Amino acid sequence: MSEEEVSVLFMPSGLRGQVPVGTTVLQAAQRLGVDLESICGGQGKCRKCQVLPQEGEFSKHGITSRAEHLSELTETELHHQSRNRLKGARRLGCNARLLGDLVVDVPEESQQHKQHIAKAVTAYDIQVQPALHLYSVTLPEPDMHTPISDKRRLQQALVQDHELPVMDCEMSLLRNLQPALAKSGREVTVAVYQFQKIIAVWPGVKKEVYGLAVDLGSTTIAAQLCNLITGEVVATADTMNPQIRFGEDLMSRVSYVMMNEGGDVAMTQVVREAFNQLAKRAAKSAKIQLDEILDMTVVANPIMHHLFLGIDPTPLGTAPFALTTDQTQVLRAADIDIHLHPETRVCTLPCIAGHIGADTAGVILSERPDLSEEYVLLVDVGTNAEIVLGNRDRLLAASSPTGPAFEGAQITSGQRAAPGAIERVRIDPETLEPRFKVIGCELWSDDADFAEQSARIGVSGICGSGIIEVVAEMFLAGVIDQDGVVGPIVGKETDRIIQDGRTWSYVVQEGERPIRITQNDVRAIQLAKAALHAGTRLLIDRMGIEKIDRIGFAGAFGSHIDVKYAMVLGLIPDCKLENVGSVGNAAGTGARIALLNFPSRLEIGEILPKVEKIETAIEPQFQEYFIEAMALPHKTDPYLELSKVVQLPPPKPKAEPGGDDRKRRSRRRRART
Amino acid sequence: MSEEEVSVLFMPSGLRGQVPVGTTVLQAAQRLGVDLESICGGQGKCRKCQVLPQEGEFSKHGITSRAEHLSELTETELHHQSRNRLKGARRLGCNARLLGDLVVDVPEESQQHKQHIAKAVTAYDIQVQPALHLYSVTLPEPDMHTPISDKRRLQQALVQDHELPVMDCEMSLLRNLQPALAKSGREVTVAVYQFQKIIAVWPGVKKEVYGLAVDLGSTTIAAQLCNLITGEVVATADTMNPQIRFGEDLMSRVSYVMMNEGGDVAMTQVVREAFNQLAKRAAKSAKIQLDEILDMTVVANPIMHHLFLGIDPTPLGTAPFALTTDQTQVLRAADIDIHLHPETRVCTLPCIAGHIGADTAGVILSERPDLSEEYVLLVDVGTNAEIVLGNRDRLLAASSPTGPAFEGAQITSGQRAAPGAIERVRIDPETLEPRFKVIGCELWSDDADFAEQSARIGVSGICGSGIIEVVAEMFLAGVIDQDGVVGPIVGKETDRIIQDGRTWSYVVQEGERPIRITQNDVRAIQLAKAALHAGTRLLIDRMGIEKIDRIGFAGAFGSHIDVKYAMVLGLIPDCKLENVGSVGNAAGTGARIALLNFPSRLEIGEILPKVEKIETAIEPQFQEYFIEAMALPHKTDPYLELSKVVQLPPPKPKAEPGGDDRKRRSRRRRART
Repeated sequence: MSEEEVSVLFMPSGLRGQVPVGTTVLQAAQRLGVDLESICGGQGKCRKCQVLPQEGEFSKHGITSRAEHLSELTETELHHQSRNRLKGARRLGCNARLLGDLVVDVPEESQQHKQHIAKAVTAYDIQVQPALHLYSVTLPEPDMHTPISDKRRLQQALVQDHELPVMDCEMSLLRNLQPALAKSGREVTVAVYQFQKIIAVWPGVKKEVYGLAVDLGSTTIAAQLCNLITGEVVATADTMNPQIRFGEDLMSRVSYVMMNEGGDVAMTQVVREAFNQLAKRAAKSAKIQLDEILDMTVVANPIMHHLFLGIDPTPLGTAPFALTTDQTQVLRAADIDIHLHPETRVCTLPCIAGHIGADTAGVILSERPDLSEEYVLLVDVGTNAEIVLGNRDRLLAASSPTGPAFEGAQITSGQRAAPGAIERVRIDPETLEPRFKVIGCELWSDDADFAEQSARIGVSGICGSGIIEVVAEMFLAGVIDQDGVVGPIVGKETDRIIQDGRTWSYVVQEGERPIRITQNDVRAIQLAKAALHAGTRLLIDRMGIEKIDRIGFAGAFGSHIDVKYAMVLGLIPDCKLENVGSVGNAAGTGARIALLNFPSRLEIGEILPKVEKIETAIEPQFQEYFIEAMALPHKTDPYLELSKVVQLPPPKPKAEPGGDDRKRRSRRRRART
Repeated sequence: MSEEEVSVLFMPSGLRGQVPVGTTVLQAAQRLGVDLESICGGQGKCRKCQVLPQEGEFSKHGITSRAEHLSELTETELHHQSRNRLKGARRLGCNARLLGDLVVDVPEESQQHKQHIAKAVTAYDIQVQPALHLYSVTLPEPDMHTPISDKRRLQQALVQDHELPVMDCEMSLLRNLQPALAKSGREVTVAVYQFQKIIAVWPGVKKEVYGLAVDLGSTTIAAQLCNLITGEVVATADTMNPQIRFGEDLMSRVSYVMMNEGGDVAMTQVVREAFNQLAKRAAKSAKIQLDEILDMTVVANPIMHHLFLGIDPTPLGTAPFALTTDQTQVLRAADIDIHLHPETRVCTLPCIAGHIGADTAGVILSERPDLSEEYVLLVDVGTNAEIVLGNRDRLLAASSPTGPAFEGAQITSGQRAAPGAIERVRIDPETLEPRFKVIGCELWSDDADFAEQSARIGVSGICGSGIIEVVAEMFLAGVIDQDGVVGPIVGKETDRIIQDGRTWSYVVQEGERPIRITQNDVRAIQLAKAALHAGTRLLIDRMGIEKIDRIGFAGAFGSHIDVKYAMVLGLIPDCKLENVGSVGNAAGTGARIALLNFPSRLEIGEILPKVEKIETAIEPQFQEYFIEAMALPHKTDPYLELSKVVQLPPPKPKAEPGGDDRKRRSRRRRART
């Protein structure tokens, strides 16, 4: 460790690194990619970057952490302390400087939640208009002369004080009404759902109530806990989808149901239990009670959606992929074993078609292509790529069977995006030597300190965005030809391209468990990108347009890939590079919009039936486009925008019929000589 | 046993007796008071009186029962058998004659259900307009070109085939939709609640659906299972209210809740379980599946009503008797542990005030005093008497604390109305000797064969209607004076009036466990009748009328008492005797009306808020009327109608102040001399 540097470990993210003595905690967080909010830009005004220094021996990390390892409290911090805005041992990240090794806890409320920020890019402002509202009323004492019920007194008070005629009450509310009245001198607060039904009651005045927006993915489940009055995200939590033990991908889960009596029930049960765990964690982190969560919105692909609702998804596993419901469903939490308030409403957003789910509804709600003048292409890449194309006049949607390659699955050295996974790759076109970055370390692999700094996390594999980059770089360096064939290059000596049975592989890192890209891996990426490209092209054809104005990648994959490489591989059609970008976790954002803005639930219900669904499986042109899209792009392809950014190879000379294979073989032979 | 007589035992009533050889089963049933339906008057046309002769040794009853103990099949029976209208070993009660001892089973569908008949007296014709309807539709096959969901296809088919736009579906329906479609070539039948919500689905065509009307009393729970399409009662079942183990009467159950944490939950649980048992028995008897019961209506007094709903009834136990809800509540069966179809709707009728419950709402719905031109008084006697007075212009209601004396409780020899209970009493005004009848035996106690015929059932006590009669007869015979004091009569030698500590008792039957009426018993009856009378008088006062046109007694008590004696005791105000009668189990009938006729649920919801509630406890005049009503009526009381029927004693001479007691004592002294 350099004399002038200190070790810092951020919790709960686990991100760590070395920073020069005197670096502020906020700077260190920014450098290490830690999620620590700052609005004022480090001026000590917004108080968002509060952190809590930890005391103790963190021997596993070789850190002896002491609060004194931070600079003394500044004037600014003392000022905030005096006004009770900086509580206990908390420090302002922008004021406190690191003087020694430290473990720093970033409280939930100081995390900015990346998807929130990603969302801010598209500048969508959520109008907070929740599905339920709180009303406080004081009821008159019961009176034998007017022996009406307390329920009726409550209704009368709501009309009198709030001009709100509420016809209906939930039974569980009735059970709690008189006890609440007795506890608080007959002043109570009620939650009214959609201005129609009283669903909860509390003694006295209550001012806050919460909701949960959940993005239920095949792999992960992510929840955002929001204050329904202010609209703030007060906590987030995510977890693996426990259904993974029944099958890694969607189709294997459907197979599980088909092979196992009651398999759907088991999967419904575990996913609901995961919801409960997430809610518990989010509530704990936000320091609220579970029964203060009264509303929930859920987005999911059709199979996850049906399983969550307790519907057997088997018909979604085979043509004609018949959905049981494509409409918004509202359920009581108690009816589906979700342990919040029993009357919490759980609203699943509508599905579009058998392959295009409520997650895509969330993406539409987040990005609102239906309001755009420009033609927008939205792509949510998972095991299937769900694609939406259109503008305010017309929307098309399709699902393309990309397979799991883009997520690092079924790739020789593939792995999920996690610390130790290669996420960036560059190949020197001259030496063919790679340099790369792994998740959890800020340095490139050719940096002097890389070996030391990455030692603890190691280099374990390659994730989705890394695969895109390495294949694209291999192509740009000539390691892959336009057909996707891996092979050595004439006149270039390298240990990186090795024979691997009857084909060739490219070695990103040598070692006991080498990381390499095989011919099969390239094929898997080609198949995936061809599926995505063909689906997109089908939509463009159907729309009858030449060019797309804007492209947004949704989801985790979209947040991490370098769009330039996505275009080099031909994942997406040509588009001005500055108009291509991540739209963050748009599905999750859509769930949050639906949670905070009730009218949007009605809007999405109106938009979806108008979306034209293209079923790629039965479109005769899909196969043709798919085969064409297997090849990698070249200079004279209509990639005008892309050609401004990268040097694409010239087109391959036309092959004589049947001559393809022979030529490939001869090329290899040449290389070996 | 006489040579020309045979023994017959009817099941399941357990009623038995001797009838001459050659008596038809129907005649025997009618003679013994067995509930066996007959519409055509024994002409063999209606086929309602079907019975099933039992084979075997019924040694406990001394009967060897053989099917051959009936006359051979008649032409009429053979005719019905050939048309499959008389199945198996069944016989027509009006055709089959008893030739030997026999045990006869009366199937559920041959029982006429007395409350039904009692109801027929008021000639209320129920229009069958249930809350839910069945619709059969055939859905088109799913199609990838129009990838809408099967739910949407169902909605479209309902509009197309039945012009029924249904917005909403229950989740449990969605779970069953695709399996049902798969089972039946995509033809399904759905149940739609209130033309709004699809709550159930079955494969293929389904034509019948059922509902349960439940009268939930403190002592008994009675259910009527109805076909919701035809309106027929297809089965009935009743059971004791298992809450009795927590307390005999309402107030002791409320006390139990106050003394025992979770006592309300326990009582809610047992009563719901009793509902489940009743439903199971009724369904079994009607040979239907439990999940074919899709609707339920419930009437109950406020405490039973709140406990059934799962609401702590404690506030109903003390002034100001605040109801949690006085409105119609509709619940899902699954939410309240009622094990029918999970989406079965359970509708509790509205309560009127803290002491006047949904059972009174049922009485109003059954008798519709709000449609009457005449002034109608409706009295439902239980531990409290619930009283309704009015006509189409105005309705008043009150509850009067009669206590349980009218039900035979807290009476020395009192018991529930059951075999062996004295239900009729006459006292010879000359000899002061009583004669009586017990339930389960058709003979009077002075009949020659009484001892023999009543031997098995015995004479165990005296029930509600018996108490009314004996006290009235004691009064008419002079055993009781106008103040209600029991004592011997000058110049009449009798063993029937005996000294019993410091007061006197009247002995109805001597023996090891003598049956006698004590001074305390008379006082209890006086208190009860004074409460009822005072409540009625309060309502008459408030209404500002002189005379009531019609009086109806509701409930089991009302069905059994001889109204003449009720008037002799002054239970009810003067009225033409022919206009006083039982209205049967009007509360239960009200529940059935609400079940079969959905608009009536809305009507009762509109009627009740207009009913003026009189809280007897806080009416200053109630105490005054109550004390006045303690005395028994005399010739010059304004009992004009009553005086036509019975010979009332002359008015008692005005007592000097404070002289009352002395006079009583002197009378006794005279008697003893």
